Amino acid sequence: MTTNQLYNSYKEQMNRIADVKYSSALLQWDQETYLPAKAAAIRGQQIATLSELAHQFFTDEKLGNVLTELKLRDDLSEDEKRNVELTLEDYTKNKKYSSDFVRKMSEQVNKTFHSWIEARKKDSFSIFENDLDALVQLKRQETEILGYEKHRYNALLNEFEKGCTVDLLDKTFTGLLPSLKELLDRITSKEQVDNSFLKQHYPKADQWNWGMHLIKELNFDFEAGRQDISEHPFTINFSSTDVRITTRVDENNFSNMTWSCIHETGHAVYEQGLPESQYGLPLGEAASLSIHESQSRLWENNVGRSMTFWKYYFPRLQLYFPKQLGAIQLENFYKGINKVEPSLIRTEADELTYHFHVFIRYELEKNLISGAINTKDIPSFWNEQYKRYLGVSAASDKQGCLQDIHWSHGSFGYFPTYSLGSFYAAQIFSFAKKQLPGLEQELQNGNSLNLLNWLRENIHRHGRKFTSEELCRMITGKPLDIKDFMDYLLQKYTMIYNL
Amino acid sequence: MTTNQLYNSYKEQMNRIADVKYSSALLQWDQETYLPAKAAAIRGQQIATLSELAHQFFTDEKLGNVLTELKLRDDLSEDEKRNVELTLEDYTKNKKYSSDFVRKMSEQVNKTFHSWIEARKKDSFSIFENDLDALVQLKRQETEILGYEKHRYNALLNEFEKGCTVDLLDKTFTGLLPSLKELLDRITSKEQVDNSFLKQHYPKADQWNWGMHLIKELNFDFEAGRQDISEHPFTINFSSTDVRITTRVDENNFSNMTWSCIHETGHAVYEQGLPESQYGLPLGEAASLSIHESQSRLWENNVGRSMTFWKYYFPRLQLYFPKQLGAIQLENFYKGINKVEPSLIRTEADELTYHFHVFIRYELEKNLISGAINTKDIPSFWNEQYKRYLGVSAASDKQGCLQDIHWSHGSFGYFPTYSLGSFYAAQIFSFAKKQLPGLEQELQNGNSLNLLNWLRENIHRHGRKFTSEELCRMITGKPLDIKDFMDYLLQKYTMIYNL
Repeated sequence: MTTNQLYNSYKEQMNRIADVKYSSALLQWDQETYLPAKAAAIRGQQIATLSELAHQFFTDEKLGNVLTELKLRDDLSEDEKRNVELTLEDYTKNKKYSSDFVRKMSEQVNKTFHSWIEARKKDSFSIFENDLDALVQLKRQETEILGYEKHRYNALLNEFEKGCTVDLLDKTFTGLLPSLKELLDRITSKEQVDNSFLKQHYPKADQWNWGMHLIKELNFDFEAGRQDISEHPFTINFSSTDVRITTRVDENNFSNMTWSCIHETGHAVYEQGLPESQYGLPLGEAASLSIHESQSRLWENNVGRSMTFWKYYFPRLQLYFPKQLGAIQLENFYKGINKVEPSLIRTEADELTYHFHVFIRYELEKNLISGAINTKDIPSFWNEQYKRYLGVSAASDKQGCLQDIHWSHGSFGYFPTYSLGSFYAAQIFSFAKKQLPGLEQELQNGNSLNLLNWLRENIHRHGRKFTSEELCRMITGKPLDIKDFMDYLLQKYTMIYNL
Repeated sequence: MTTNQLYNSYKEQMNRIADVKYSSALLQWDQETYLPAKAAAIRGQQIATLSELAHQFFTDEKLGNVLTELKLRDDLSEDEKRNVELTLEDYTKNKKYSSDFVRKMSEQVNKTFHSWIEARKKDSFSIFENDLDALVQLKRQETEILGYEKHRYNALLNEFEKGCTVDLLDKTFTGLLPSLKELLDRITSKEQVDNSFLKQHYPKADQWNWGMHLIKELNFDFEAGRQDISEHPFTINFSSTDVRITTRVDENNFSNMTWSCIHETGHAVYEQGLPESQYGLPLGEAASLSIHESQSRLWENNVGRSMTFWKYYFPRLQLYFPKQLGAIQLENFYKGINKVEPSLIRTEADELTYHFHVFIRYELEKNLISGAINTKDIPSFWNEQYKRYLGVSAASDKQGCLQDIHWSHGSFGYFPTYSLGSFYAAQIFSFAKKQLPGLEQELQNGNSLNLLNWLRENIHRHGRKFTSEELCRMITGKPLDIKDFMDYLLQKYTMIYNL
């Protein structure tokens, strides 16, 4: 076969896998948005069947043979070569799992997820404990299957963020936490800001209209996606021409919907900016979870919680909610939406204390996977750490170690990518401002298209071609550096809290 | 293997096929309701991949072997035996198609569908002609593959309605048409009824609320289904616990949404009444297209256009539309919604003239497949027949032979099931009234649950266990008989038109 024929056969196989994978994703989207109650069990089965098929196709020897053969060819284009390399990596990793292990894991995840639901309902970790422990043991087995250097947890971190290690995270957090703590203490000693106006009654329909308006303003392409309502906001894609975001509306809390809309739009414009021609191939996928999160957080925080942004949008927002916000000053609105306050729930945390939430989960997972602590110790470990870092105590497990869905899905090693996302966002945005001298003024005029195009050019169009680290170096000229993030926080809170 | 093990292996394989088939159905539902414009092409590809997989699994030798082996076992229950028989029939039929032919057909259908869209846009049959002709030739090939007795068209009829033949349809229509024509002439000679009040402005949101109310009243289970908006109303299911209907709202025509809601609910409660335990197996599927249609039409017409029904619902409807209907008398409403008038568009036809529309299509298809007329003759044949039977002439192809989607999908032999549905509906409903002496009174009190339960007991719960003909005999004690249908029309129109 000519290289061209061989590459086409590879592409065809990958396209078929993508079709099945994205079909399964649509079933999941539907499950979270529109599925009738009685269909839950059968839907679970349908998703499992498609996932199994996708796995089966992706571990097919035929694909392996084509990949091995393509690897030997020297007349592939640079992009083609990269696709083949990355696919071969994925393929080799997938082949390590026996189908027996895959089935066991999938069954245990299913059981653990239902225990978590039940445990939350009854507000009791003990209902979750046994299934969670069985899952932790399987994840420990998985680290053996995958292999690792130095720390067992590295194998799992690497699943969500290629190249991410305990060493790197320990170094990053060790560098960051004392500065964060110091900043937090300085803020706490100052006069606190008032954000009570965010907790008034904001009618659902008005919030929805405002959110849709905002999304459109932020260049979400409604011809290549849509927004719906779900219990927890998320972004999911079935191609770069079909990217769906969801949101939720809390009538008594304005923050909930607005920043979830901006956050998910950040994820979505990344997916919409991936090259359509690379459908089903690595170069048609996002670079990594942390880069994905950097896009959502750049829009949500660096843009969407900035004075520049609200100078333009606050008068417009007031037109949607004249009764609630008509009498509020822009400056007080800005301060209110940036209020810092140690709290129990990660998803509601401010930009500063957020990273303590992540750090606590990271420490817990690291010790759980290494075996240094046991599953039964989670609640006490959790509560101690929250007391220590944030000075708060959860009244119950639901407000504590049962709050996140991740472990019930077997996603150990995921949380750190949230913090990395914030750090990358600050570094990238700081560099974007240097490269786009008119940016501040544009944002102040409600024009964010140039910023999006810059992100498209520097990040989105590359797909998975580069790792997070490579992208970061290419764009900013240096590896991940928390200095930009700290500078960003310092500048913001100095102004808000008169530090 | 024990029979039990063998039957479980059969069930497992069928479940997997159903999972893939229903996933594909969800992709289609989404395509008609929520798909963003730019995703059309990739969605087509995703659906094609799933359809191909379902076909591949269903023609897998492994399934054939299990079926052949099961057929020899004598310790299956009656239902299990029937499942195996029906699946083996389906399997044997599917195996007749070469994958080459399946691909050719699927490609030609795709091309023809797009030509039809284009032809409608430009209002010109000639744009459709070549692709349609290629499709007709493939359908003729298909009749050779499937085999047939007497008439080539029988092979295609049998695909949509097992056992249906040209002989049967000729006999049925020959018996019916003169009486219909005579009735139509008598009606035309009388004073015509006024239905102009249906063409006022009925706001979208009010129509939606009214439609949702009506659906709930008719026992559609919203925990096992939902309603959405699409361009053309349809019912689709992904299990008996997830049945979705769609409707459309025409603000200037009240009829459009209300009776489409009732019609699709008729289909939906059938699907919701199929046994959940038979998911993926023949006994979990509807008996036939004509029986399916009998359920939608029984609710839409025999119930939903009856005086009994509106005695209860008209005062309630007036509360939704006081401005439009407040001054209309029940009797005039009833007459208006049953107005008979020869027209060009099948989907808007009344209960009487509707069957001329079907008959014309039937005659056309029969002659097209036998070769008695050529594809290029369709417009002239069409127009002659409409003139002859209904006395109307289409100003353009769009109002004429381009109006229905069916041929562009390759669905030749489908139309007759619509008429059969009406005939079965009349026969079944007439018998239901005999068996449920309180029925009229119940319906007049807005209570249709007993009727639904009777249909569940006599039809729904059996799935595909019996053919249309068998079901009809079991329920009414006789085969299909158009007398009930004619009696129903005579009685209705005698009252409305003072015949």
